[in-house]
Amino acid sequence: MNRTLRVELGERSYPIYIGAGNMASADLYRQHIAGAQVMVVSNETVEPLYLDRLLSALHGFEAGSVILPDGEEYKNLEVWNRIFDALLQKRFNRRCTLIALGGGVVGDMTGFAAACYQRSVPFIQVPTTLLAQVDSSVGGKTGVNHPSGKNMIGAFYQPRCVIADTETLNTLDDRQLSAGIAEVIKYGLIDDPEFFVWLEANMQALRRREPATLAHAIERSCQDKARIVAADELEAGQRALLNLGHTFGHAIETGVGYGEWLHGEAVAAGICMAASLSRRLDWLSAQDERRIEALVAGAGLPVAAPASLGADRFLELMAVDKKVLEGRLRLVLLKGIGGALVTEKFDSGLLRNTLCNRI
Amino acid sequence: MNRTLRVELGERSYPIYIGAGNMASADLYRQHIAGAQVMVVSNETVEPLYLDRLLSALHGFEAGSVILPDGEEYKNLEVWNRIFDALLQKRFNRRCTLIALGGGVVGDMTGFAAACYQRSVPFIQVPTTLLAQVDSSVGGKTGVNHPSGKNMIGAFYQPRCVIADTETLNTLDDRQLSAGIAEVIKYGLIDDPEFFVWLEANMQALRRREPATLAHAIERSCQDKARIVAADELEAGQRALLNLGHTFGHAIETGVGYGEWLHGEAVAAGICMAASLSRRLDWLSAQDERRIEALVAGAGLPVAAPASLGADRFLELMAVDKKVLEGRLRLVLLKGIGGALVTEKFDSGLLRNTLCNRI
Repeated sequence: MNRTLRVELGERSYPIYIGAGNMASADLYRQHIAGAQVMVVSNETVEPLYLDRLLSALHGFEAGSVILPDGEEYKNLEVWNRIFDALLQKRFNRRCTLIALGGGVVGDMTGFAAACYQRSVPFIQVPTTLLAQVDSSVGGKTGVNHPSGKNMIGAFYQPRCVIADTETLNTLDDRQLSAGIAEVIKYGLIDDPEFFVWLEANMQALRRREPATLAHAIERSCQDKARIVAADELEAGQRALLNLGHTFGHAIETGVGYGEWLHGEAVAAGICMAASLSRRLDWLSAQDERRIEALVAGAGLPVAAPASLGADRFLELMAVDKKVLEGRLRLVLLKGIGGALVTEKFDSGLLRNTLCNRI
Repeated sequence: MNRTLRVELGERSYPIYIGAGNMASADLYRQHIAGAQVMVVSNETVEPLYLDRLLSALHGFEAGSVILPDGEEYKNLEVWNRIFDALLQKRFNRRCTLIALGGGVVGDMTGFAAACYQRSVPFIQVPTTLLAQVDSSVGGKTGVNHPSGKNMIGAFYQPRCVIADTETLNTLDDRQLSAGIAEVIKYGLIDDPEFFVWLEANMQALRRREPATLAHAIERSCQDKARIVAADELEAGQRALLNLGHTFGHAIETGVGYGEWLHGEAVAAGICMAASLSRRLDWLSAQDERRIEALVAGAGLPVAAPASLGADRFLELMAVDKKVLEGRLRLVLLKGIGGALVTEKFDSGLLRNTLCNRI
């Protein structure tokens, strides 16, 4: 059941290995590590579960590890700097390789550290959450948060490979699994309506972690993402579609405080808000809006933003989004399921209605 | 007397404008700024001298400024983050442009902030020190220091243009001017022996800041650097020659504490140490070693490292250099004046002698 996909980016192309147990494959690391020094970056939750397994696959390398606290609230410059402390303490040189062992936060911070250590060293993603396996480990977006906005400091920097071990999902708690499903639903909505229908039929099997169902969802998600990233690596256009639900979602995460809502939960609510605004614009039928909400709710995810965030504060938070251009907010909206588009052409009154009447 | 050189890097090529008063040329900025928002980054020393002049040339843009403390000891992640605070406070988007107004520290930090803000925005260098005009503003090396090593965190990121206003050198104190001359001497030693001879004849005119002499030194230095950078942007090989004197120099800067010695002073002592080791290896004649020391001393620069730094500590500091590969220290040494080479083939006993007997 092991599969290999490829992200096609010219000389920066790389494989995604999806399979049970592949984290322990010494061969995979040897194929993708050029130097002798390897630093594994992980967090306090993942370390006791998987660090030893990964380190034994690195037999023969000069390997070290650095363990960060777990959670979006630690995705900042100060914690990021601990990776450099560890690298310099071991005097690792510019031929060293970094390995990100963990979820999206570990992957984003490790990738950004690799982009910047001695002006760049290679890195490998070993994602251990569903969200990281289907989304954040693929595509080269790396970075940290600033108190004023998510992912405001970062780099586009591609890994040498992604090793997605589906067995790690067995240790994921239900809330984390659901958070990952939010990004899976996103791919169906963007441009893969057939996948959306498949998800409607298979959501409960997915939540029960049936191996074949999980494997299909991961593979299809990675295929969808790899195709979009290959067409537009630096987000000059089409890649922005991957932010469906994220402008609303980032505002929720920043507004309630990093770490309160999981990223996937905020994205889920954001997807429903994008659907709601699209329906108000008559771009999406009320029936399709209900299908989207039902699928999100069926995944165990929130369909609305927290009531504590008022519309004014919400708009203020959305105004720092990276997709804002010349003061105009751009959003990813839906012309039907599978018909996402980036647009600044929406009535701001309808946006406000969406923010005010969001139950 | 205005001149334009070009750094040839394919789609990342850019011009270097050298001339008196060009900082105030609104035209130059308009040619190289695409969006409406501009953030000028400067320091407390340069701000009162030049910020208003630059801002008036930015008439019509939405311009802001952020002023950092002055000195190498502030080139760290914490101070770097203030640039993001300022950008986010003004809600600047990814179409904004950063302008570095100052010396090497301001240029390195601003360039690195531009590389990372919202995963990269354009920037312009307006260097106001000789060192920045002849070296650090050209070539795209950006970054900050870590307590364990110089420039350990950074990016290769090219500016849209360099605007070197030679009038700014009139406000530079003598110590800063001399520090810049260290890098000028470096170019002669690397591969331009004719320039080295010219410097021997013109050093005192240079220190008196005779305009034609200064302009020639800046232009020739930028030409030499642009040629080396164009051949090897990411320092896979030849570009490392530009680090002549820097492995020794960085160890001095880190060892005595950032900001104690100026970067150019440490490089000057480092150049003399590289010459001394080269002479011990019989690669450089004793006569040429004396010529190098005489030129460095004639520039008002130190020819030896501080006695407080013992050989063991020196070797320890050199071991974290970015040019270390698989545990082997590589140095830029001289086979004659104008014959620099990168090598790991030197007797470590001779290196130790160089570090011990350095008066």
